[in-house]
Amino acid sequence: MAVSEFDLIRQYFANATGMRPDVLIGIGDDCALLRVPIGKSLAVSVDTLVEGRHFQPGADPTSLGHKALAVNLSDLAAMGAEPAWVTLALTLPKADTAWLRAFVDGFAALASEYGMQLVGGDTTRGPLSITVQVHGFVDPALALKRSNARAGDRLFLSGCVGDAGLALQRLRDDMPSSADDAYLARRLDRPTPRVALGQLLLGRANAAIDVSDGLIADLGHICSASGAGARVELERLPVSAPVGAECARGNWQHALAGGDDYELLFSVEESRLDAMQSACREAGQQIQEIGRLVDNSGIVLVYPDGRLSEEIPDGFDHFRT
Amino acid sequence: MAVSEFDLIRQYFANATGMRPDVLIGIGDDCALLRVPIGKSLAVSVDTLVEGRHFQPGADPTSLGHKALAVNLSDLAAMGAEPAWVTLALTLPKADTAWLRAFVDGFAALASEYGMQLVGGDTTRGPLSITVQVHGFVDPALALKRSNARAGDRLFLSGCVGDAGLALQRLRDDMPSSADDAYLARRLDRPTPRVALGQLLLGRANAAIDVSDGLIADLGHICSASGAGARVELERLPVSAPVGAECARGNWQHALAGGDDYELLFSVEESRLDAMQSACREAGQQIQEIGRLVDNSGIVLVYPDGRLSEEIPDGFDHFRT
Repeated sequence: MAVSEFDLIRQYFANATGMRPDVLIGIGDDCALLRVPIGKSLAVSVDTLVEGRHFQPGADPTSLGHKALAVNLSDLAAMGAEPAWVTLALTLPKADTAWLRAFVDGFAALASEYGMQLVGGDTTRGPLSITVQVHGFVDPALALKRSNARAGDRLFLSGCVGDAGLALQRLRDDMPSSADDAYLARRLDRPTPRVALGQLLLGRANAAIDVSDGLIADLGHICSASGAGARVELERLPVSAPVGAECARGNWQHALAGGDDYELLFSVEESRLDAMQSACREAGQQIQEIGRLVDNSGIVLVYPDGRLSEEIPDGFDHFRT
Repeated sequence: MAVSEFDLIRQYFANATGMRPDVLIGIGDDCALLRVPIGKSLAVSVDTLVEGRHFQPGADPTSLGHKALAVNLSDLAAMGAEPAWVTLALTLPKADTAWLRAFVDGFAALASEYGMQLVGGDTTRGPLSITVQVHGFVDPALALKRSNARAGDRLFLSGCVGDAGLALQRLRDDMPSSADDAYLARRLDRPTPRVALGQLLLGRANAAIDVSDGLIADLGHICSASGAGARVELERLPVSAPVGAECARGNWQHALAGGDDYELLFSVEESRLDAMQSACREAGQQIQEIGRLVDNSGIVLVYPDGRLSEEIPDGFDHFRT
């Protein structure tokens, strides 16, 4: 692929997102030069999507562009940070213009939604792989650290869990098509990072994490970091109709360990419960209480019939495939 | 590769570099939380090295760890920025512990040399690929932008150019071994980012760039960005004995277009010449004047015999392979 083709790609990317006044130099010099607001910390997260591992060959490029940014925005959301800048390191087997335009469309649409600017990147030739790093701002005193949860906190979830995992299983098992396919595929391929909710939780929640590894695994991360245990009432889990049907059959795998949901799991102390809930109501944020944090370590699941799970140790990853 | 193996890798990386007081949260939460000093801008650069493209399969992992960081540090150097934090997105075909330890050794040794802390990353399975993003600080009023060069400025180079290109050619052509091999290989595999020089040039140089694409191509970037032309006296080019031998045979390819040298090319206005030169002398920084910037566009090369090259247009990449 000629150098000039890559230059065109860069040019196309450079103009794909908006311009921010805190970007002193964007793409085109040795470094980007960026200004962080006084009093704010810089929040940084990086994730790689590799073909054959995180997505199948032939995956829709617009969805890939969306998802590569969304999974990183979800990390900013889980810290309560306000998105600002993004870099993109893209490795491509060839300069397929149609693919690239579609990828940039998905990437730039989501970036614009959050007023983000692409400030740097690298485009190289090789096996398809996408590394995105996002940068945001947050008041360090309020940031939603994993380690800030306290025994007694109530546990909440945004949206619903298990859809992405069920979508993936249906694809893998080559299941007959169903009325839910479009919904499930959208939840897997176009996750919605809960950015506004994360910022709304500043000063209202103690700890937060995004559900990327699966509900119980991510709850385990909060518990480990905070030195607490948790009790989750499965009856209260927010699930869609297709995931709910699985749960009703006794298959909790997707809801508890599906991963890739990018919902926020967060803990709120009792004294702030009303304020948090009314703020969410006002903002139209859908959240659901699912249990609470407890003193002893480990996670206990309360099944709808009242049966308790054996205690699940912190850092649990039994469900992981 | 089991999740726990990756967790071990992360753990190993997390402790491989020092701890900085401006890192409020490092590895282990959804985001790193970082504090940029008041009055400084954040300088950011990202580069990917892909196996088979930027290095050969079987390349020494310690050198790879060094080089993946060095090429990025070189970008900070070219802006005059002070290195602070680094993230590493590593895609590996398998969890080869010996390879990983060697890679981390090379990476961490260089990071420690500059007091950098690894603050985030991602480790995934797939074709070998390394994406590093560096973060540094610089006073935005002094940053060595490419666009700050002015006609009349003198042009300088650090170190010497052409070694990496010659090393690569000798490898490709499978040349018989020579006394220079060890020196040349070291210049290719373990480049020295000119970080201290970059910072020393703040307030003393107008523009700078690191020589990664080749001297003339990178000079072309400065000329394009600054709207100037340049005149380079080839007799003055700093070259090692083996590259000098090539030039003496009339082969200027390596010196002018070799790339991968990671030396600094910078422009200084006449009024600051003495101050800049004595500061470099005091700091033991080896620099060499090689020409000057001129009003008209394009780059003119003055050969040692006085012959002039045809004018080379800005953004020149004739020499590129």
